[in-house]
Amino acid sequence: MELIVQKFGGTSLADAERIHRAARRAIQAQQSGYRVVVVVSAMGKSTDNLIDLAHQINADPPRRELDMLMTTGEQVSISLMAIAIHAAGHKAISLTGGQVGLITDSVHTKARIKKIEADRIYQELDLGRIVIVAGFQGVDELGEIYTLGRGASDTTAVALAAVLGAKYCEIYTDVDGVYTTDPRIEPKARKMNRISYDEMLELASSGAGVMHSRSIEFGKKYNVDIHVRSSFTDSPGTLITREVQQMEDIVVSGVTVKKDMAQFVLPELPNQPGVAANIFARMAEHNVVVDDIMQTFDDSGFAYTSFTVEHSDLAECKLAVEEIVKEYSLPRIFCNDPVSKVSAVGVGMRSHTGVAQKMFKALAEAQVNINAITTSEIKICCIIDPKDADKALRAVHAAFELDKAVNGR
Amino acid sequence: MELIVQKFGGTSLADAERIHRAARRAIQAQQSGYRVVVVVSAMGKSTDNLIDLAHQINADPPRRELDMLMTTGEQVSISLMAIAIHAAGHKAISLTGGQVGLITDSVHTKARIKKIEADRIYQELDLGRIVIVAGFQGVDELGEIYTLGRGASDTTAVALAAVLGAKYCEIYTDVDGVYTTDPRIEPKARKMNRISYDEMLELASSGAGVMHSRSIEFGKKYNVDIHVRSSFTDSPGTLITREVQQMEDIVVSGVTVKKDMAQFVLPELPNQPGVAANIFARMAEHNVVVDDIMQTFDDSGFAYTSFTVEHSDLAECKLAVEEIVKEYSLPRIFCNDPVSKVSAVGVGMRSHTGVAQKMFKALAEAQVNINAITTSEIKICCIIDPKDADKALRAVHAAFELDKAVNGR
Repeated sequence: MELIVQKFGGTSLADAERIHRAARRAIQAQQSGYRVVVVVSAMGKSTDNLIDLAHQINADPPRRELDMLMTTGEQVSISLMAIAIHAAGHKAISLTGGQVGLITDSVHTKARIKKIEADRIYQELDLGRIVIVAGFQGVDELGEIYTLGRGASDTTAVALAAVLGAKYCEIYTDVDGVYTTDPRIEPKARKMNRISYDEMLELASSGAGVMHSRSIEFGKKYNVDIHVRSSFTDSPGTLITREVQQMEDIVVSGVTVKKDMAQFVLPELPNQPGVAANIFARMAEHNVVVDDIMQTFDDSGFAYTSFTVEHSDLAECKLAVEEIVKEYSLPRIFCNDPVSKVSAVGVGMRSHTGVAQKMFKALAEAQVNINAITTSEIKICCIIDPKDADKALRAVHAAFELDKAVNGR
Repeated sequence: MELIVQKFGGTSLADAERIHRAARRAIQAQQSGYRVVVVVSAMGKSTDNLIDLAHQINADPPRRELDMLMTTGEQVSISLMAIAIHAAGHKAISLTGGQVGLITDSVHTKARIKKIEADRIYQELDLGRIVIVAGFQGVDELGEIYTLGRGASDTTAVALAAVLGAKYCEIYTDVDGVYTTDPRIEPKARKMNRISYDEMLELASSGAGVMHSRSIEFGKKYNVDIHVRSSFTDSPGTLITREVQQMEDIVVSGVTVKKDMAQFVLPELPNQPGVAANIFARMAEHNVVVDDIMQTFDDSGFAYTSFTVEHSDLAECKLAVEEIVKEYSLPRIFCNDPVSKVSAVGVGMRSHTGVAQKMFKALAEAQVNINAITTSEIKICCIIDPKDADKALRAVHAAFELDKAVNGR
């Protein structure tokens, strides 16, 4: 008997009626002949509320205690979901991360999954039960409680799907799939039927907030088909799956914009081995997550280094930059704040030429100046002025004709 | 180094400020040279809110899932309490029932404590930490989560005090101690300085809501001194302790009233062995908790049996009574609904005569009719009309001069 994993996010569980609706989906899947494992997030904004409460008491709460606190949110959801399935006359059992045997490393608030001991799940499935698992949480070998980082219920779901050999993993959320770009900015944005793991990873890290990046990495590593769909409709969503030949016919599959960023430019660093390593080690010491790095050089002996960070890291980043200025006696630096980043993503660009040129031309025609550029194998990013962000996104979306379906995507 | 256990109830933890106040008490105790173990209940009305949510989803939620749900309330409290102690610069760690090694039997929503494996607590205390334990919860040998019944955080605290050989167990609550009667009915009610376990047990089961009966039983069994006091003042409360000679000088130590009851009278049951056993077995089958039982007989061969139940059990009780009426073809029964019960409690009445007479005289002078009477070694109860309840309570309180302190009680 095949098995599927369904994951319901906080908005899909925000009240009693939505919990009943989620319960019906799980029951329908079981009645269609599947063994069903359900992963849930905390209800609505409950995790935020718990964190607020902790911060009212202590501006810097210990991470161990935050984990103890936050994991209650998912525990509430699993029990209510099981209660809802019982209300409909079907069998279900809720399991915490610890009870399900989800073993993590020992890093509070951002633990990583080490293994999942699936025996208990199989026992419960054999009894005909729908198994409801608390997302976002696990325990270490000593029974200490850990969380996997914000949004990581997706990761729990995909990891379980991998371990249990699920046919697929459904991610129920408040949008009906993955779009070629943000529909709030570009009304012509089109929902994609399929997208590859790599494209989804680039889209997620470039600002598309649909899914937790780590869950896509898991999906790619273990080849789990992930179906992102709306909990409020029955229409199919977007299948995140392994790359197929067909996908390469499309040069660019999506465009994203990331706002609330700052760009630092360090124009007179010595162009010597170890300098870049030293600079980004400083950033790591200050717990600054660096987004993009751009560097070039000339024959003056200087490297022109630039990088972007999110606004939430700006204060710490400035401290790190001050240290660097002192260490290298830099006469000048620039901080461009705020900036935005527009990115075009697609596996097709690996084998197509002229993609960057097409994007730059679209931006030029829209009168958007490009401050900086970085590229990866399947992505091109341009750093621009925030006032141009929405216009830039629409221009690139139109240039690659993303409003038109190609090959069923 | 001596150890104490402090327990904080829901009203003592209702918001951030109160949690800070509770944290300060624990820190003060540690600074006075004690090792400190803190037991907490869920914040304010959060357990009620969770149960309401469950009932919105399912009128009859499975008990296992209710336990999963309700235990989150105490888990929130332990983490916030630890976070508050850290905020004050002191060391603390929170532990769930499972982490503390509180092992229960396997009866959901009303499990009993089988044992407490205190190793983890001692490890944490040895590190100089204040240990914060979730009340009301435990796990069985398989790691399934159980609760100990409403109000059972008191039981967790006293049981821990017993296992850890605590010097005493402080119960912080929203009243400043145990009173000779309910001060809302009799303004002359006086806070007692000391009371014996047996008296407290009788008071608790007769309607004084200060503490959970089971916790007093634990205290008595393991001789744990229990100090009931207010979390809002520094004044001493009431010490619940073993009986001392001195206590017996006082005939009656407290008076209680219990309202919302119904009395059944079955006047023509056969006066034969096994009849009473059969009747109360029926009640147990219907999960009816019978409060008091009164029976007498005459030479007609009939037994006159009467008993009281709380209103919450009334519907089920009527079903049980219908079965009994059929089985014994009873021509008549009575149900007195509602009735109240006024009780006088005191270890001194064991060795004093005329106590019952004094109580009946007080009620007579107050024009209160007595429908039924039961007595135990240290308690006299009268079933009366609810309209007379408050008047009866004041009359008995006055008759035994409970507003006057005697021997420092």
